[in-house]
Amino acid sequence: MVNIMEKLKLGIIGYGFMGHEHVNALEKFENAEIIAVCDNNPQQLEDAKEGVLTFEDYRDLLNVEEINTVIIAVPNTLHKEVSIAAAKAGKNIICEKPAAMSVEEFDEMVKAAEECKVLFSIHHQRRWDKDFRVMKEVYDQKLLGDIYLIKSQLYGVNGNMHDWHVFKEMGGGMLYDWGVHLIDQMLDMVDSKIDTIFADVQNVINKEVDDYFKIIIKFKNKVTAEIELGTYYLVPDRSWFMGGKKGSALSNGFGQNGKIVRTRHLLENVPGKITMSASGPTRSFGPPEPGLLYEEELPKVEVSALDYFENYWNALNGKEEIVVKADQVRRVLTFMDAVRKSAETNEAIQFE
Amino acid sequence: MVNIMEKLKLGIIGYGFMGHEHVNALEKFENAEIIAVCDNNPQQLEDAKEGVLTFEDYRDLLNVEEINTVIIAVPNTLHKEVSIAAAKAGKNIICEKPAAMSVEEFDEMVKAAEECKVLFSIHHQRRWDKDFRVMKEVYDQKLLGDIYLIKSQLYGVNGNMHDWHVFKEMGGGMLYDWGVHLIDQMLDMVDSKIDTIFADVQNVINKEVDDYFKIIIKFKNKVTAEIELGTYYLVPDRSWFMGGKKGSALSNGFGQNGKIVRTRHLLENVPGKITMSASGPTRSFGPPEPGLLYEEELPKVEVSALDYFENYWNALNGKEEIVVKADQVRRVLTFMDAVRKSAETNEAIQFE
Repeated sequence: MVNIMEKLKLGIIGYGFMGHEHVNALEKFENAEIIAVCDNNPQQLEDAKEGVLTFEDYRDLLNVEEINTVIIAVPNTLHKEVSIAAAKAGKNIICEKPAAMSVEEFDEMVKAAEECKVLFSIHHQRRWDKDFRVMKEVYDQKLLGDIYLIKSQLYGVNGNMHDWHVFKEMGGGMLYDWGVHLIDQMLDMVDSKIDTIFADVQNVINKEVDDYFKIIIKFKNKVTAEIELGTYYLVPDRSWFMGGKKGSALSNGFGQNGKIVRTRHLLENVPGKITMSASGPTRSFGPPEPGLLYEEELPKVEVSALDYFENYWNALNGKEEIVVKADQVRRVLTFMDAVRKSAETNEAIQFE
Repeated sequence: MVNIMEKLKLGIIGYGFMGHEHVNALEKFENAEIIAVCDNNPQQLEDAKEGVLTFEDYRDLLNVEEINTVIIAVPNTLHKEVSIAAAKAGKNIICEKPAAMSVEEFDEMVKAAEECKVLFSIHHQRRWDKDFRVMKEVYDQKLLGDIYLIKSQLYGVNGNMHDWHVFKEMGGGMLYDWGVHLIDQMLDMVDSKIDTIFADVQNVINKEVDDYFKIIIKFKNKVTAEIELGTYYLVPDRSWFMGGKKGSALSNGFGQNGKIVRTRHLLENVPGKITMSASGPTRSFGPPEPGLLYEEELPKVEVSALDYFENYWNALNGKEEIVVKADQVRRVLTFMDAVRKSAETNEAIQFE
């Protein structure tokens, strides 16, 4: 698959929200050129850029010889069909997440790509989210000593899902939409196999699809992780907490906003300041003495919205290893199956 | 056991931190009089109030006829022995939490109290904590519609445990110390049997005893609850979150500090404002449009540090039902066994 190419000559299959986003983003990527866009709803094609071919049937797009790579941004249930057809047409593939509705589907997609010798990757671009990369630096640089806890939380106010995400039969719901990102990030960060997964998945406001989940992961390296998301939480937030034996790290928002907190000393069994609650005192949870805690800056990272495509392009040309690997994507899908099973059975799932 | 008494004539057994706290608190309770205090460490007795008898052996205190009620504030492993001796001496009993090291111990204590016809209760005074009572009002008044999630969190900065709480063989650790309160509150709030308990319990800084735990409870009424505590979290906080189909409620601190948040409408599938993260946009988790969310005050409650004793006194005189009931305390102890088992086995425990 490693012919040095002049450019990514792209066909976008599915020209809805993400299809449009890809076109807008890739305008700034010098190694890409949009050749064609495709949507089975002709209204979506009305704002296609000048000079870009438009198709209603993705098979027509796949017949355009100039296109060397397709981006698949159709509803989740169609990923497999379109990916396999694209592979057979000899196109390299960037497929939106979640890669597939099941591990079995994904295996078929990988097999087709291997047989046809095309580069197949999933658009897990949130590996380059700034908040995630900052926390991954904290983890990788061991800034907090041994880690006991990592929390990744995302809370919204909209309640309902967008577009087709409201329909179960199109692969809707937040576990498929954002869950797959939050899981992918956590599994990319923590370099350990997993002992156990326990999950709660609920349809709070949406009738058909999940809009709240909490997932507890016990990794074999003793890190406990929690991923929690709610679209009807009403206290909007994107946050991380990481706790280690030498400090805690916090991040808020999608950018570089947070801090590391450390303590100058531990309790040495002298009575601390007592906090009176209505019904009694607490020594353990009174306010800290002034100066006990101190803060440090989080590590700095530089990321760009185009980093995913840059890596894909370099991988295609044999200059870099692909970052989003098929076996990682497969592990995320297997993980999601375990999440659903745990939520349905109320059991903890022994994972690896 | 219902002889109208002149006063609670009290003997305090164990004159450490909590013993002193009880004496200080009860000075303001007109129906109580401290007759004697007892500690096997004579240094603890040096600051006993004038006119109060002092003993080093609790059996000597139990021989004081004037005393009609004892408060047992010795290390947890001694609760059973002292409670049973007090019952046999005909004293009514207020025992510190956790009631016992095991359900079996507790059953013996209850049996002794019943046989000796004394009033036996556990000092679960945090049923009257203001933050808890405010959130319980939100729950009881159904201010948020059907509840999907309740979180009760307590984070400290001290790291180490106080006094004997650092020793495993004296019943140390945070699950026994604060865990029992947080669990008691949650089980008192949610009027439902429990399906499943899943827990993570860790010794982060303390060598012998737990200082971090996270407990997920799936109640049969579809409420999911989380209790989380860490002494080395380094971001001090006491907080509650309650999420329902008609809003969310937040509380911070041990007092009346928080709000109810509601939304004027749900997403109606029109594109909202897009939040750009470093590597891509999000429609679902962008900032809320101005005015979308609105706030209401939390319900007001009045509680006092003496409410526990007031209720105990009234129950002793047949004027009120005792609030902290033996079967509730037993359920909390059974729950704690399940927490430990889940943490050890990594399994979810089917509870009721």
